[in-house]
Amino acid sequence: MDSRGSVGHTVGVVGGGQLGRMLAEAAAPLGVEIVFLDPTPSAPAAAVASDQLVADFDDAAAIEALARNCDVLTYEIEVADPDALEAAREATGTEVVPSPATLRTIQDKLIQSQTLVDAGLPTPAFKAVDSVEAVRDACAELGYPAMLKARTGGYDGRGNAPVREPDEAASALAAVGGPPAMMERFVDFERELSVIGVIGADERRTFATVENVHEQEILRETIVPARTSNPVRDRAQSVAGDVLEELDGRGVYGIELFETGGGEILVNEVAPRPHNSGHWTIEGAQTSQFEQHLRAVLGLPLGGTATRGPIVTSNLLADVTERVPATPRGIVSVLEASGARLHWYGKREARPLRKMGHVALVGRSDESRDGLLDRARGVTEAVTFEES
Amino acid sequence: MDSRGSVGHTVGVVGGGQLGRMLAEAAAPLGVEIVFLDPTPSAPAAAVASDQLVADFDDAAAIEALARNCDVLTYEIEVADPDALEAAREATGTEVVPSPATLRTIQDKLIQSQTLVDAGLPTPAFKAVDSVEAVRDACAELGYPAMLKARTGGYDGRGNAPVREPDEAASALAAVGGPPAMMERFVDFERELSVIGVIGADERRTFATVENVHEQEILRETIVPARTSNPVRDRAQSVAGDVLEELDGRGVYGIELFETGGGEILVNEVAPRPHNSGHWTIEGAQTSQFEQHLRAVLGLPLGGTATRGPIVTSNLLADVTERVPATPRGIVSVLEASGARLHWYGKREARPLRKMGHVALVGRSDESRDGLLDRARGVTEAVTFEES
Repeated sequence: MDSRGSVGHTVGVVGGGQLGRMLAEAAAPLGVEIVFLDPTPSAPAAAVASDQLVADFDDAAAIEALARNCDVLTYEIEVADPDALEAAREATGTEVVPSPATLRTIQDKLIQSQTLVDAGLPTPAFKAVDSVEAVRDACAELGYPAMLKARTGGYDGRGNAPVREPDEAASALAAVGGPPAMMERFVDFERELSVIGVIGADERRTFATVENVHEQEILRETIVPARTSNPVRDRAQSVAGDVLEELDGRGVYGIELFETGGGEILVNEVAPRPHNSGHWTIEGAQTSQFEQHLRAVLGLPLGGTATRGPIVTSNLLADVTERVPATPRGIVSVLEASGARLHWYGKREARPLRKMGHVALVGRSDESRDGLLDRARGVTEAVTFEES
Repeated sequence: MDSRGSVGHTVGVVGGGQLGRMLAEAAAPLGVEIVFLDPTPSAPAAAVASDQLVADFDDAAAIEALARNCDVLTYEIEVADPDALEAAREATGTEVVPSPATLRTIQDKLIQSQTLVDAGLPTPAFKAVDSVEAVRDACAELGYPAMLKARTGGYDGRGNAPVREPDEAASALAAVGGPPAMMERFVDFERELSVIGVIGADERRTFATVENVHEQEILRETIVPARTSNPVRDRAQSVAGDVLEELDGRGVYGIELFETGGGEILVNEVAPRPHNSGHWTIEGAQTSQFEQHLRAVLGLPLGGTATRGPIVTSNLLADVTERVPATPRGIVSVLEASGARLHWYGKREARPLRKMGHVALVGRSDESRDGLLDRARGVTEAVTFEES
């Protein structure tokens, strides 16, 4: 066995959602086995991975058992428990990447922002708040409207609440689960961009600067490359590179950025894992972010990050008003679209705006990114989870 | 549930080798489940598929059980048993595609060639032979050297024996397992080409004409597109289209062709399944042959077959002299190569010249196909299964 060879390794993954599933899809051609831990039996990753431990994300004994059964331990959700990961590492000697310390920093949005600022990186202005009065004071300083954010646990817009006037401070604080929290200056951005970065054993690489369209704070589409100027794309690459320098631990990171009206780049958030805005890499880059994450966590050479051509990904969100069994209609419209590839996540239940899958649409040579985006929207909108 | 939607379907596959494994890899993003039957426990497909039935390929009861547990039944090996498949279809009503009748025709090389000739398709001249004397008579007619072929069961050159002079007739007939057999005129080809074709519910499509390099009758590399003239590539497409017209049953077919010195196209053999010379479609085409096969057998719309750019695939063959556990060295050279993707088949045992995996090398924009081929060979040759 080659000491640096990939064949025969097992990667333990805390979390078995769509990111775990796509990690497992990338693992098979590499000869890498995936064992994951998730509290939901038959989680999305189960259909593809070698084995699942059904346990809670903070079940220290189960995480230790997972660590014993793999060569390296990683996670695909930010709600992984850094204490349990650290304990498992100490008990078993199995490396955890990215490091639990990095996860802890990123989990707390206030500490994350402070760490970025301390490193000289550009972020939206922010203030820690621990009371309704502090929210009002912070807004007075940052200006109305400002965004109140829970320090931990938020995703897809959950845990965020805008404060447009002083009277909204109390209800906003209640909406994000109470203090402690942070206020952030509202960024009147021109575009939302992101860069997928990766830290390997002795190298750091970034994928192309891409553009993200959110609606109700949930990612809808990613456009590759971003429809902005070359200098802005380059600046985003440079900032992302600087962010990677501050992070500790091998693996893939999703780096969310704002492009301001003046063409400046601000760092919004960092995710210590493959990222929804990096799904385009499966068809659109030399190496997918999932294969790249596996290479990185195993200490193998990183793959190329070059873009193969214009591409748009579009999320398939459940258009339902309550929890119902997942019974999609219109999938055929995805299969019929030229250059489209379906990525189904295997979730058994549809919930309002839940991510059920995504579509990657590889651009035709004569196609503008606007045209490609329109086509992707049309394909995605034809899929419905509502009962007929 | 969309009546034509792919999500939730189960495909039964007889055979769980690398083709079954890559079918399962393609199935997950489509939301399709794969259950396969293979006599080897933990066959290559097992790591990725939903379930395996451990049973012989001609185990009629097991094949019937497989048919009961899937929406459609297919096979990834030519030694599947058409009688057992037919019986399972009759007992369960589950469709078998491609049809057992097509499998039966293709399994017998004599009947296959006769069927092609009857349809007016160009093939190398051939004769049925049932004795040493008949071998000599056929060679006298076809010319020395000629190729003696077992009518059934041969693959990767097994079951073929050249006859260079009358005295070799007896030993050649013994080498192919005795009569009945067929003699085929030796084709002094310029190139070996192939076309992957697919029959859908109401359409037929072909992928690009590609070039194959064999050594010891085992496929080593596939070069995309073939390094021949446009008229020859087009003629190959036309002949492949004609072959597809003669075949019965939805699915992917590998159509092996010879390009003669005069630029004529002859049909060598047809495989009723995804084909080694179609692995390039995973990275190199809009839709992979594996996804295409799943779409076809499920009666879903076929995917696009356009080529994304030049690509070479190269097989990783075990360079061992006896059966040994598979312990590859040098895999890192694959991971380090620009544009290379590893496809590992998960076979636990290396055998002389066994296909253990393949490498797909996506061409750089400034790279000739000769240069790409050289690079692919270098990458592949760095991988060894010999003990150090």
